[in-house]
Amino acid sequence: MNNQLDNLRDELDDVNIKLLELINERGRLVKELGDIKKAQGMKAYDPERERDMLNHIIDQHEGPFEYATIEHIFKQIFKAAKELQEEDYHKTLLV
Amino acid sequence: MNNQLDNLRDELDDVNIKLLELINERGRLVKELGDIKKAQGMKAYDPERERDMLNHIIDQHEGPFEYATIEHIFKQIFKAAKELQEEDYHKTLLV
Repeated sequence: MNNQLDNLRDELDDVNIKLLELINERGRLVKELGDIKKAQGMKAYDPERERDMLNHIIDQHEGPFEYATIEHIFKQIFKAAKELQEEDYHKTLLV
Repeated sequence: MNNQLDNLRDELDDVNIKLLELINERGRLVKELGDIKKAQGMKAYDPERERDMLNHIIDQHEGPFEYATIEHIFKQIFKAAKELQEEDYHKTLLV
């Protein structure tokens, strides 16, 4: 029984690290997207595109979490990436 | 240039779906862990283990996000999983 607990905990640790890697990969993609958009004179943040992404995620969702929970977690992830773009933008202004 | 934007958006959508799958996989693991612990008369929620997981994640973190941002996102993910265990527990009480 306790072996089973240990195995599940190891699996959980692996999933945590994979999540970390994906969240950071997402951050790098959003930064890259923001840089290209700024170079084209476009605003980096696009609320409509964010809504579309969220709808696409919700469409694919099958549980066990509630839709509202998934939406909440992704909004935190999106918000973090937005801050990363803004931070970058402010740094540009200061140069 | 716009092809490059489209490609990055496609990559972002892929990362979003992978994140969704991992968050849900994590939910299933936490539920399974909680069930085993309850069957052994243990409390499902263990704040010390949660702190250890968070420290392990932070140790592996290399950016681009701030440590505080990563901690915040993971606390939301942990909180959701905790609610899933509690929900399950309340359902058991009602049977």
